[in-house]
This record gives sequence, C-alpha cells and structure tokens, in this order.
Amino acid sequence: MSRLSFSLFISIIISSCFLINPISSIQSQINVWPKPRSISWPNPQATLLSPAFNILSPYHQHLSPAVNRYLRLIQSEHHRPIVTPTVNLTSTPPLHFLTLSISDLTAPLHHGVDESYTLTIPTLGSANLTAFTVWGAMRGLESFSQLVWGDPLRVASGLSVSDSPIFGHRGVMLDTSRNYYGVEDILRTIEAMSANKLNVFHWHITDSHSFPLVLPSEPDLAGKGSYGPEMQYSPADVKRVVEFGFEHGVRILPEIDAPGHTGSWAEAYPEIVTCANMFWWPAGVEWDDRFASEPGTGHLNPLNPKTYQVLRNVLRDVATLFPEPFYHAGADEIIPGCWKADPTVQTFLSNGGTLPQLLEIFVNSTFPYIVSQLNRTAVYWEDVLLDSTVKVDPSILPPENTILQTWNNGPNNTKRIVSAGYRAIVSSSDFYYLDCGHGDFVGNDSRFDRQTGDDPGNPFNYNGGSGGSWCGPFKTWQRVYDYDITYGLSETEAKLVLGGEVALWSEQADPTVLDPRIWPRASAMAETLWSGNRDGTGMKRYAEATDRLNEWRYRMVGRGIRAEPIQPLWCVSHPGMCNTVQ
Amino acid sequence: MSRLSFSLFISIIISSCFLINPISSIQSQINVWPKPRSISWPNPQATLLSPAFNILSPYHQHLSPAVNRYLRLIQSEHHRPIVTPTVNLTSTPPLHFLTLSISDLTAPLHHGVDESYTLTIPTLGSANLTAFTVWGAMRGLESFSQLVWGDPLRVASGLSVSDSPIFGHRGVMLDTSRNYYGVEDILRTIEAMSANKLNVFHWHITDSHSFPLVLPSEPDLAGKGSYGPEMQYSPADVKRVVEFGFEHGVRILPEIDAPGHTGSWAEAYPEIVTCANMFWWPAGVEWDDRFASEPGTGHLNPLNPKTYQVLRNVLRDVATLFPEPFYHAGADEIIPGCWKADPTVQTFLSNGGTLPQLLEIFVNSTFPYIVSQLNRTAVYWEDVLLDSTVKVDPSILPPENTILQTWNNGPNNTKRIVSAGYRAIVSSSDFYYLDCGHGDFVGNDSRFDRQTGDDPGNPFNYNGGSGGSWCGPFKTWQRVYDYDITYGLSETEAKLVLGGEVALWSEQADPTVLDPRIWPRASAMAETLWSGNRDGTGMKRYAEATDRLNEWRYRMVGRGIRAEPIQPLWCVSHPGMCNTVQ
Repeated sequence: MSRLSFSLFISIIISSCFLINPISSIQSQINVWPKPRSISWPNPQATLLSPAFNILSPYHQHLSPAVNRYLRLIQSEHHRPIVTPTVNLTSTPPLHFLTLSISDLTAPLHHGVDESYTLTIPTLGSANLTAFTVWGAMRGLESFSQLVWGDPLRVASGLSVSDSPIFGHRGVMLDTSRNYYGVEDILRTIEAMSANKLNVFHWHITDSHSFPLVLPSEPDLAGKGSYGPEMQYSPADVKRVVEFGFEHGVRILPEIDAPGHTGSWAEAYPEIVTCANMFWWPAGVEWDDRFASEPGTGHLNPLNPKTYQVLRNVLRDVATLFPEPFYHAGADEIIPGCWKADPTVQTFLSNGGTLPQLLEIFVNSTFPYIVSQLNRTAVYWEDVLLDSTVKVDPSILPPENTILQTWNNGPNNTKRIVSAGYRAIVSSSDFYYLDCGHGDFVGNDSRFDRQTGDDPGNPFNYNGGSGGSWCGPFKTWQRVYDYDITYGLSETEAKLVLGGEVALWSEQADPTVLDPRIWPRASAMAETLWSGNRDGTGMKRYAEATDRLNEWRYRMVGRGIRAEPIQPLWCVSHPGMCNTVQ
Repeated sequence: MSRLSFSLFISIIISSCFLINPISSIQSQINVWPKPRSISWPNPQATLLSPAFNILSPYHQHLSPAVNRYLRLIQSEHHRPIVTPTVNLTSTPPLHFLTLSISDLTAPLHHGVDESYTLTIPTLGSANLTAFTVWGAMRGLESFSQLVWGDPLRVASGLSVSDSPIFGHRGVMLDTSRNYYGVEDILRTIEAMSANKLNVFHWHITDSHSFPLVLPSEPDLAGKGSYGPEMQYSPADVKRVVEFGFEHGVRILPEIDAPGHTGSWAEAYPEIVTCANMFWWPAGVEWDDRFASEPGTGHLNPLNPKTYQVLRNVLRDVATLFPEPFYHAGADEIIPGCWKADPTVQTFLSNGGTLPQLLEIFVNSTFPYIVSQLNRTAVYWEDVLLDSTVKVDPSILPPENTILQTWNNGPNNTKRIVSAGYRAIVSSSDFYYLDCGHGDFVGNDSRFDRQTGDDPGNPFNYNGGSGGSWCGPFKTWQRVYDYDITYGLSETEAKLVLGGEVALWSEQADPTVLDPRIWPRASAMAETLWSGNRDGTGMKRYAEATDRLNEWRYRMVGRGIRAEPIQPLWCVSHPGMCNTVQ
C-alpha cells in the first residue's frame, strides 16, 4: 500500500503542478542544484528537445553507462516545475545533440580530481559539454538533465554554465552496523548523491552492533557478527556498490572502525576484544568508568598479537574490495573502562604503561601497514589526536599520510586539526549530524517521565534541553546550509580543509527513514560545498535558496528519493510569501 | 527502487530473526500491543494453527469484512519475533476455530461504545472471543492476530485475555491542507490505527493553504482552493475512507477549521475572507499586529451574511458525508490583525464593538446550526474559550453540546477546561504534537546562520533552544508514553477527559514522512490510553515497554507501515542491554 500511495503521490504532484497559480510578478527560472559557480542565461528561453535527442560521447567504462542513464532520465522524467518557469519557448529547431568533449579519459576518481565542466546550450545547433575528466563530464550531464523539463520536453537555451566545486570532498556517511541497510538502499543513496554532485560515500560499515561485511580471509567476522546471513554485504555486493559509485562519480570510502566500536568482532574472536558483551554502564559506576558511551561494548585488545593477525587480514581484504586510495581507520571514542576490563591491560597499566601508549601500540601496529603495504591515505576521527585522555603523539601520524575527520566542538576542532598541519574533513555534530534531535534510544530512561511542559531554565530537563538527544536539536537544512566549514581559519589553514560530510548514525535510523533523514539536508551541504552559500555580493543566500531547494526537493521525489518536505506546497507555489522579514 | 528496497528490508528482517541469538535468561513472550488490561497465561505454551483455521462470526456489515481481513492476515503474516519466544509448543491438535460471540450487533461506532472483549485460547478445543459489540470484537480480533506467529503458524494457548480501554477517545489528527496526502495514505494510517486499537481519525481537512474537500453544494471551494484536481478528496473518496473506518472500528471525525485558518476559501469567495493572500507578518509590524501566526493568511468575515450562507452549505454537506456524531469546528488562533484588515470589521470596532463579540457573532451563527439542525456535538480547539484576547463567553457554548480540545500549556489547560465543566480531548503540544522538533519552515530565517555550537544559556539561540521549532524538542515515544492526560485533576474532573490525540501538522510533513512521523509514537499513546503506562505495582512501565514496542514496531514494518526504529536491532535482540540504570 505504501508504494502505491507513494507512486500516486508522485504522479499527483507531477500532474498537478501546472495547475497551481504562478505568481507572475516573481521571476522563476529553471535552476540547477547545487547552483553552478557561473551561469549566463541573458534571455531565459527554451528550445524543444528532439524526440531523437542523443548524447555523443567518447567511450569510457564508467562514463558510457552514465551517458546512457542520463539519456533515459532525460527522455522519461518530464519534470514539471511547481512554479511555471517564465521562459520563452523559441521557434528554432529542436535540440538534437549534446556533444561531450573530454581532455583526459584516464584521470582516476581520486580526491582532488578535476570536476570542472562547461556547458553551452545555444539557441541553434548542438549543445556542448566540455570537461577535463569523465568525472567533470558526469557533473555536467547532471546539470544538463536539470535544465530539461516539461512535456513535450524542452531545454533551457541561450545558456552557458562554467562550473567547478569549491571543495573536493563532499560526502555522506552512513552507519550500516547499528541497523542494516540493503544494497538497494545504498545504491539509491549514491544515485541521489550524484544528482547533488556529492562525490564521497563514506561507508561506516562495522561497529559494535554488527559486522555485516563478508571478508574472504575472515569469514567468521560477518558469519558470526552480522545480524544474520541476509543482513550481510558479500564481496559481490561490495563490487556492485563500488562499480555503481564509479558510474556515478562517487568514491566509496570504507571505514572499519577500530580499536573501539568493535564489540561485534567478539562473536568470532572473543579473545581479541576487551569488555565485549558487558553491560555498558552498570549501576553505581561513575560515567568516567563506563565500558562504552552507548550500549554496545567492545574494543580490540592492543596487547594481543592475534588482534593484528585478524586486523591485517581485514585490512588487506578491504583494500582489495575497495580501490579508493583513502582508508578510514576510525579510532574514535576509546573508552578507558573497556580496555581496563582486560587482565593483560591491567598488568600493562600497573607496570607503568599508560592509556595513550596502548593506543600508540595499536596505531604503530596498523598505520604503517595501511600506508606502506596497502598504499592508502589513512583517515581517522579526530579523537586519535584530540581526545582528552586516549590519544597518540602526533609524531607517529605524519600529516602527509593522515587526514583527520572532525565531529566535536564545531569550528574549534577544525582549527586545531589544520593548525597542526593535518588535512581535515568536517562533519561537525553541531551542524552535520543528521540523526540528532530524535531523543535518546536507551531504554528505562526516566528523564522522559515528566508531566510538565516548558522548563527552559534547565538544559538537562526535557524541554529546556534538546529532548534527550546528546547532539540535539535537529539540524535543519538551513543550519546545514549556513555553516562555513572554514570559519575562523586563515587562508593557509583553510586550504587544508578537504571538504565535509553529513553523517547518519543509525541508532534510530534504518531503511524506513533513510531518505527523509538524508534528503534534502544533504542537498543543502552539497550546494554550500560546491558553490558556496553566498550570493554575488557576499550575502548568505539562504532566502532564495529556499525556493530553489523546494523545487529540487520535488524533483528528487519525482526521481524516487523520499526527500522530506521543507514547507507546505502553498509556499512553493507562492514564492516569498512564507519568508520572514524580521 | 525505494519499494524494492523496502520489501527486501522486510523480507530480510523476517528471514533473519530466528538467527539472532536469543538471550535465554530473559523470558520473552508473545505480546499484544497495546498491552491488555488483564492477561492470564500461566504456562506460556503454543498450539499449531490449523491450515484450515477459520473464524466463526455472525454476519455484520462492518464486522464481516474485518473477520475476512484478519483471516487473511493471520494466514499470511507469519511473523517471526526478533527474540524467539520461550514458549512450549504443545502436542495437542491444532487450533481450528475462533468463535465470536457478540451480545449486541446494533451498537453504533460512537464515542463511549463498549469496546471490551474477552478472549480465551484453550490448549484443546476452539478459541472464543466474546464482546458486547462488534467494535469490541474487532479489538479482540486484533489481539488474537498478534498472538499468532511463525511458520508453521502457532498460536499462544492456555491463555485468556480480558480487556477494555481506559479512555474512549484515542485518536490521530492529520492535517491534509498544508500538504496533501493520497487516500491510500489515509487508509494505511487508519489500518495502522486499528492495529493499535486507536479509534478516532481526526481529519483536519482544510486550512489556509488548501481546501481539498470537494463539496457538492460548494464545488468551487475545492475547485479553486485545492492544490489541483488530483489533490482533492471527492465524495466517493470520503465514502471510501468512512467505510474503511467502520470496517476497522475507527471513527472519522472531520474538522473544517473556521473562522481562522480559512485563507484557501478566498480562492472561491474572496468577499467572505478577511486579509486573504496578504504577507503574514510584514516588515516593521509588531507581532501583535501580524495577519497570521504562520504564512498563509485569512479568516472568515463574521460580519458578512454571505459567510454563513457558504458555511451552512459546507456544514450540511460535511454532515451528509460524515456520519460521525462529533463535528470539529476548529476556532483556534483568531489573529486580531486579520479581522482588523477588513473595513466592515474596522467600522464595527470603531463603533464600540469588540473582538470577542465578533467571535460570538460567528459562534452564534454556526453553533446552533451544528447542534440543533445537524444534531452534532461540537468540538472546538480550546482557544474558543481560553484565548487571551479573542474568546467567547462560556454561556454560549453549553457543556452538554461542546467538547474542547486542548493543545497549549500542558496539564494546566486540561484542568481549566474540565474544571469549567467541559469535556476535554487532550493533544498537548508539549507531549502529543508529532511534527515538533524539525526546525521552522519559514524562509529567509537568519536564526540558523550561526557558526558556533552549543549555547545552552540562551533559549532563543539555535542550540540552547529547540532548534527553531516553536514546540520543540521532538516528542520521543517515551515522552508520549509517560504522559498522564489526567495529571493534576480530581477524580470528578478526570471523568471529563474523553481521551487524547497525537497530531501531525503538515508544514514539514507529507506522504514521504507520514509513517515514520506517526509510528511508533502513536503506538506509545495508544497503550497509555488503552491500558495505561503503569505496571501492577503502579510504577511507570516504560522500561519493559521498550522491548515490547521494539517487537511491535518490527511487526508493523512487516505489515507495511514504515514505523521508525527506536533502537539498534542489537538492542532488540539483547533485551535489557541497552537500558540505563541511572
């Protein structure tokens, strides 16, 4: 019934749009999301698209499937804008061809690859898309597809776009351990990412709750540690995801979090995991002595040689499965109480060893292997250097091979990372954590048992705080859109910020809410990281972005992405009327 | 892709559940949600369900389709609990029959109708379901369906249930004006309500944003005021919803909000609507002088006789379409600035007339018609009596024909309503508003443009407050579950509380998010209003409810309702391990 209704909804939206009164006094154009860096369309007009329209492109393993996909999309989408565009349809012959010219068919899909393109759609003759790389060509194809609409199909003409991203790393992180997502969910997410010109799917594959990744050298990890045989990712599944990523210009960046967040490894190898399957925070125990920061305990034991035997098998298999040159090694949230639950660790500490030394042993036993043997750049969560207790000396993580991903303390930690010379990926929980603001998931929580309403004076109380969510409140699309990830940095420091990622942790998410939790909020970040969040005068452009994001949200829904609505449809069809002027 | 993936997800969940390690030390039974008032199952055991299983029931126009539906559900669902029940399968012959005995086949589906039932499933012989009314029988059928699971099918046996609701009014309110929902969405919601023993679908059909209801006597209201011909509810659609409601024991309670929230009426009748299509809060205007509390302006003009000509046609048509004896007349949020925009109102006020008098004119011109001509009990939002500025004298709304629905000020306003002798429906925005906590939808909102993180000292700032949502934070299922809707009332006062409703306002909701916004949080209210939120010792039972709600959530997902997850699957399969003990 759900699907029926959803299809019905889409067809209703599509078939009704032309019937909503446009506000004729407001200029509305066909837009591209994220907004291109430079677009010239002096006389908004459109040409019919020929029924025989075709895209001429050199053959390329990954580009050619993309070309075919866009051709099908363009021919079938028939998008009808909510607000009828004020665009003149010219009487020139219909557009027959889009011709692709690509300088370098060999540039691999790595961080920093040239994604620029120029697109010209003249009023007469064929359209041209020029790019240095196939990845830039894919960005241009997406822009072209968004410039086509209606039935019969028409395409914006007399237009030229010159476009390239501000940041090279524009990602979505998905946690597939706390709850499982099917391969189709992941593919749909990658497809939507590509439509938003996002280019990194950061796959937080494993955690303490389940280990869904089937590894040929260590089959028991998923065999015993997954939620079940139907809730695993086989090598064939991974291959499908990686290939799909290439065909969409999206890098698949795997994360196997370690040494923390590894409780699920204990199902196969109890001997290498400390504090596994213990109650996370027993009665009477101080918070500082907890076993985990949330239910689901377990850390890899840095003192057990077997740990590295298993881990190197894991690393080698992952490097084989994922060609991506970055490897995310995790290393967040080492909880001292978990290591201290182990007798060998206790002995080590009572002999004068320290917690940072334990982490250094772990890093020294894995980082060189990742860098030298597997030829990967290691990405770590910031904790590995910035945690207040368990962190390593920076000397063992050379900045040339190490990237740090920040999630705490807003712009302050970004500054700490780049001022120490490290490259940074920004996923600040204050701005980019998409799961926040839905309360807390732990059971038996008496905080919610209150019979009163507002109590704004006390941030620990239900209403004065953020409703039980550690990172509440909910991050609105505006909050995401307005964040400047290089805020407070010098020009030199800012160059070390590779980009950003919105993150969906899955304590309270699974396939039922995947699309609306991510979209259109990830679209908001996508534009900010691609072309910025300011207009030509340097003013934040969140007001006009509202109207464009609304249209884009409906277009995504039409493409099968359940992006959540940001306003009543009335607002979409009455641009400006739902603004505030205060 | 979405549907494929969702089906895959469901089948994965279902096929994997038996493979998750049960924690054998924790007793887990097959449960019924909402928990019955009284259940006796001294020796948890089960009997196979015969492949020829049948339900024997007297014929009844609405019950018989329900019986057929439950028979199909029972035969096809094959629910597999996440935690394998510790139930002995007896070797007795399989269960062949459930026999229904109903004392009164004529009792209509009205407020207060007897919904009690008793269900006995012996270890030998046929099961019996006894109820006073067909509506009680439907509740019992639902309970029976939840006691069947597995493949081959088995059913709990040696069990008896005696059950009835604490509150007679247990509802979900859906706003179909700000965004449109298809009929299939509404039917799916009613089906899920029935599974949770909820019995009132409060349909907030119209508002300022669109008027989707096609009325034979006033076709232009939807013809011009809806979002388009495909986003309307025809009389046939309404009939389908009402019939579906009867077959599920769910009353369909219509609301045509007036005199506020009527901007959409102006598309057909601009002359009866004040301040229509004006900018809601112009620059430089004080908040007290705004035209509306949110974008979308327009109030019916109480001084124009045409208003009542149109409105009586509307009322008469609605009473014809909806047999429900309650009629919700709205009357919330009268904004003085909107009426004051009209010249006739200005003259009235300058001649010594008052705002309350304007509302009294309106109520006196409609309430007697609703009560005497249409024979309905009028439900109003509390504002009609409790607003600080625009309210009527209680003498014109006799308590015997008037029910007030409270949404402000938590238990305090419930107390004000019942202590004045009125019956109350509780939908406190502090507890029961399901849309809260997702930020604000107005455009051009500079509040979100902040580069800093937490600022808990200032409730108006982004992080210290509730992220821009007027009724934030998000109402968690625990918050909903723990609320006692008669808190602070005397025993006599408490008797005037008919029940409660969770409400989904649709500024930021539409079919893409309908299911997860409502479920399983409405399930939490459903149990609290049916059998309470306390265990036998009087303690709040939110801890054990977590495990039961988790199982119920997965069962709802299996039935096609996209209820959002409340915990990682790991927590579901490791009962108690995700609790807090602090």
